Amino acid sequence: MITSLNHIGIAVRDLEISKALYQKIFEVKDFHTEIVEEQMVQVASFKVGNVLVELTAPTSPESAIAKFLEKRGEGIHHIAFGTNNIGNELTRLNDVGIQLINSEAREGAHEMLIAFLHPKSTGGVLMELCEPK
Amino acid sequence: MITSLNHIGIAVRDLEISKALYQKIFEVKDFHTEIVEEQMVQVASFKVGNVLVELTAPTSPESAIAKFLEKRGEGIHHIAFGTNNIGNELTRLNDVGIQLINSEAREGAHEMLIAFLHPKSTGGVLMELCEPK
Repeated sequence: MITSLNHIGIAVRDLEISKALYQKIFEVKDFHTEIVEEQMVQVASFKVGNVLVELTAPTSPESAIAKFLEKRGEGIHHIAFGTNNIGNELTRLNDVGIQLINSEAREGAHEMLIAFLHPKSTGGVLMELCEPK
Repeated sequence: MITSLNHIGIAVRDLEISKALYQKIFEVKDFHTEIVEEQMVQVASFKVGNVLVELTAPTSPESAIAKFLEKRGEGIHHIAFGTNNIGNELTRLNDVGIQLINSEAREGAHEMLIAFLHPKSTGGVLMELCEPK
């Protein structure tokens, strides 16, 4: 079952410029910074209430985020929803006809297991499921 | 101060088709449905944890959502953040150089006062501020 909104992923070109902008808007005190090698991105995140905002910049032109930026420019890239059993949830969604980008969970930021659903079958919204390890 | 993520606004063409899709993904039990005349939209919303997901369909081709759909297709339209003093927050953001779409708060769904910030000055993300009346 999907139980929470975990984070919003925002694609940015330059992490330092975007950190300065988001600091101004949200009065952020601390960013958590992390490199996710598998996805070729660098992430700076901060909390707004119970939800994380993840500013995500590519570390390689091969990264999916680099391709997104080229096509759409900076902006919201995905929304991630928390579940307590990502395997069961992927099976359930597949069974009701939702197309999965990742049929099995893999490593994401913040020590989470993650998997993406295909925006073609979720009304144009790139959705991620995540479960704390 | 911005204290929470209140809701995510998703632009959809047909509210009934999208309700059926989101029911399938999120196992939604109840949608709250509302027409916001001032914005020429019909909204169906449901909770995921503490956050509302608002499916928003135009009721007129003149609606900003109709124009968004024409240009970008279905998908995430905006993210709304909660504040306990929307007037102060708009003044503060204006003072630090953030461009406001609405310099004063106006009526939104769910009996909220709302105002939008311009995506040109917020890294491509259409942000709404909202405060319960």
